[in-house]
Amino acid sequence: MNVGERVDRRRRRRRRERAGDQATNGIAGNRQATYLRQLRNPYRPIEQFSADQIETIHETSLKILQEIGLRVLSPEACDIYRQAGADVDAGDNRVRMAPELVMRCLADAPAEVHLQARNPKCNVDIGGNAVAIGTVGGPPHFSDLQSGRQSGTMAAFENFLRLAQSFDVIHIVGPLVEPIDVDTNVRHLHMTRSQVALTEKIPFVYARGREAVTDALEIVRIAHGMAEETFADTPVCYTVVNVNSPLQLDNTMCKGIIDFAKRGQLMVLTPFTLAGAMAPVTLPGALAQQNAEALAGIALSQLVRPGAPVCYGGFTSNVDMKTGAPAFGTPEYVKAAFASGQLARRYKLPFRSSNVNTSNTPDAQAAYESQMALWGAVMGGCNIVMHGAGWLEGGLTASFEKFIIDIEMLQMFASLMQPVAFDEDALAMSSIREIEPGGHFFGTQHTLAHYETAFYSPLLSDWRNYETWKDAGGIDATTRAHMIYKDTIAKYEAPPMDAAVRTEIGDFIARREAEGGADLDN
Amino acid sequence: MNVGERVDRRRRRRRRERAGDQATNGIAGNRQATYLRQLRNPYRPIEQFSADQIETIHETSLKILQEIGLRVLSPEACDIYRQAGADVDAGDNRVRMAPELVMRCLADAPAEVHLQARNPKCNVDIGGNAVAIGTVGGPPHFSDLQSGRQSGTMAAFENFLRLAQSFDVIHIVGPLVEPIDVDTNVRHLHMTRSQVALTEKIPFVYARGREAVTDALEIVRIAHGMAEETFADTPVCYTVVNVNSPLQLDNTMCKGIIDFAKRGQLMVLTPFTLAGAMAPVTLPGALAQQNAEALAGIALSQLVRPGAPVCYGGFTSNVDMKTGAPAFGTPEYVKAAFASGQLARRYKLPFRSSNVNTSNTPDAQAAYESQMALWGAVMGGCNIVMHGAGWLEGGLTASFEKFIIDIEMLQMFASLMQPVAFDEDALAMSSIREIEPGGHFFGTQHTLAHYETAFYSPLLSDWRNYETWKDAGGIDATTRAHMIYKDTIAKYEAPPMDAAVRTEIGDFIARREAEGGADLDN
Repeated sequence: MNVGERVDRRRRRRRRERAGDQATNGIAGNRQATYLRQLRNPYRPIEQFSADQIETIHETSLKILQEIGLRVLSPEACDIYRQAGADVDAGDNRVRMAPELVMRCLADAPAEVHLQARNPKCNVDIGGNAVAIGTVGGPPHFSDLQSGRQSGTMAAFENFLRLAQSFDVIHIVGPLVEPIDVDTNVRHLHMTRSQVALTEKIPFVYARGREAVTDALEIVRIAHGMAEETFADTPVCYTVVNVNSPLQLDNTMCKGIIDFAKRGQLMVLTPFTLAGAMAPVTLPGALAQQNAEALAGIALSQLVRPGAPVCYGGFTSNVDMKTGAPAFGTPEYVKAAFASGQLARRYKLPFRSSNVNTSNTPDAQAAYESQMALWGAVMGGCNIVMHGAGWLEGGLTASFEKFIIDIEMLQMFASLMQPVAFDEDALAMSSIREIEPGGHFFGTQHTLAHYETAFYSPLLSDWRNYETWKDAGGIDATTRAHMIYKDTIAKYEAPPMDAAVRTEIGDFIARREAEGGADLDN
Repeated sequence: MNVGERVDRRRRRRRRERAGDQATNGIAGNRQATYLRQLRNPYRPIEQFSADQIETIHETSLKILQEIGLRVLSPEACDIYRQAGADVDAGDNRVRMAPELVMRCLADAPAEVHLQARNPKCNVDIGGNAVAIGTVGGPPHFSDLQSGRQSGTMAAFENFLRLAQSFDVIHIVGPLVEPIDVDTNVRHLHMTRSQVALTEKIPFVYARGREAVTDALEIVRIAHGMAEETFADTPVCYTVVNVNSPLQLDNTMCKGIIDFAKRGQLMVLTPFTLAGAMAPVTLPGALAQQNAEALAGIALSQLVRPGAPVCYGGFTSNVDMKTGAPAFGTPEYVKAAFASGQLARRYKLPFRSSNVNTSNTPDAQAAYESQMALWGAVMGGCNIVMHGAGWLEGGLTASFEKFIIDIEMLQMFASLMQPVAFDEDALAMSSIREIEPGGHFFGTQHTLAHYETAFYSPLLSDWRNYETWKDAGGIDATTRAHMIYKDTIAKYEAPPMDAAVRTEIGDFIARREAEGGADLDN
């Protein structure tokens, strides 16, 4: 009997023995929690460095941009930098910028972005103390307990979308898993259609060349039923631009920055500064480099279109010095997240961090490394938690069970962010007066008046006593996560979409397919 | 093949295949990390409530003590309260205290306590930004993957002690698991001897009656080779006194407060305020009650001996409103920890919190709930993390695998607390200048100069890539924790103890056993 069969048997037994129990495990209940829609973080961010130290990192990064510069592998971007007054060395494509130029560009970047979803209930703010949570994005593999680890497929991509739609704590869709079974020249068409058809959340568009971006944005525009002029002034989707750290912006990434700025869509600029590999081994140095790279990319977007919506991405982590492999959710990662938040706020920019881990399986390690990363993100004051649900194996696998484990953790954070009622009723003096010393508060008027909403109600956690849990099969959290993921997909209902819109998207995709899809080198 | 056999087989295979790998998994390495000895938390604590709200909780708790009072089931304690000016109702043992009396007592309590271990390297400060970490304490059961869940034994108690001694991130010993196979009248004798013989860390003494406390303190005194007068002015061990919430102090607990104050040993006063059960369902009310109970107990200790070492314990959590069962590591638990830290600092008292969870098995749930609790503790500014390693199942089981999972998490926190070097070398401008754009920092002078100490080196986490991990058996974190726990106990060496001291303790225990042990009702 393989794992999948064991899971199935357990699930059947569990269903037989405890009919209706799944409902009390909270899926339905938690979906209704309206507080999950727009999170606001009430806590003062944790600071890793003093204000002076942050200023020193800032100055070091400006010095890097002025004296060392970035290699920019896009003639178009080099022209834009040059016209703005940067020193561009045509020989080695090195762009050097004076501090004044960098800071002038940054002054144009908006502090907050309002992302409009096709269902207004799913609109989400980015910036200030607003927090938006996205799914995993990018892994070439996916896994679940039943089938193991496999190459990404469109079917898996769509099942992750169904999960993303099903939980209100997910606000924006990440690119989930790479659907390798779809040809690359048309992959963007199908990925975008699936996102807008299967969810109402903010969609993601890969910056994989000019034609692919134009196609994907067109599908999103049609889904919103927007005129082109409205679209360019209304952020409705987002992309992530990574720097080829150290200090290199490639042609595709530059086009992404330029195109997203022109079309007024959100661009998250994230250097990939792994300390000890693509950045200095010391945290202040890695952060200075991250900051230089982020500022250079954001400056380019503001040169293309002042006020273009952007987000400062922090992804600094460290490698395992024994093997050179990247490690995530480490103490160094947490410190970098705290510091990156300070830097983003230094420039009044929204801040992106991530929920990451290095584990090869959705186990205790995956959970504690993810928690470290999440606390770094949330208490670092981040506005977008990317890879919020499903990331495993340093980003090489999207795990269905990890997705559910993450949803539970994210819902706990969402609950943590809710303000505590603080009035005479909450202080409960009369209730305390009413109970005899050594007595109990079950069944009092005060308890009954509050019990339904007083506490967080878990999705995945099992709080039953040992004997009851054991009698019901003694199922661990990862296996329960498998059951919840299957159950959620079985119960999934697609959000409504106007038939005319659906047809228009279908016609557009058919036409582009007939034209041979996108030239990804363009 | 049962789980234990599978574990054994995997372990053998793993040993065969990757001989020497255990060493690189960090046990030896991490034991040498001297920074684990005395932790200092550099972060500003997270605040749950405004200063005004904290003041309101403070005032509400003083009003509770004045108007409602505590039931105190100890004639001796009632006398002490009465002599200090409290209003004692002999009819129902209700003690009511004026705010001035409470605050006068609190003014005598020390803000910091220096705990002296029998090996000075294991001395630890409690208070300010110092953080000390203790093991689990109290469960009637223990478990490991091989043998499952069993009633506590002295053999298990001693194996946990061996683990506690083996990891520098553990500073103080909790009472681990209850050794039910030892008679209650002599259990304290053997528990105390095992602690001082098998570890050099700060020992725990249960407040289980006057005779048992006297016996246990005598064994600790002998282990330290201290004169009685020195002992009474030198905190070397600690106890926890729980309030029978709501608002009741029983006779045994009162004797514990009195005896520990008289002997100058640390007393951690922890109300057991589960919101919705032993306290109001609303957090401000539960905290007001917790605060009233803590202040009353601490006041008693200061009336016995002004300046007696004490610690403010926060344990407020919530019940699962569906079943009434306690839940730990919840969002409400975290909020209560943040708020309790604010209250303790309001009185300039050291603060105790805990690493707790509700899971029935050392799985992903155990890890993420524990992480929530640990972040609540550490960022709540706590000075003692009780149940730091090994707690499972809401405190009903001490788990060997969970102990190792916790050690990894605690070591990550210890690393997080280390300050980041911040100078020209750390900013690494010359290293960044040296590397070509798109290049890498492996093997540079700067990287080589730092790589051995730059990053946290894990004990349990497996950072190898998927294929390598899979080829080596694809072992999850909980199973690896089992292997590390067994390996640690196999490699354990008892700390040195003077033969004369060992004999004196043995003679003392033999005499007390001959006398029939302790009368636990006294």
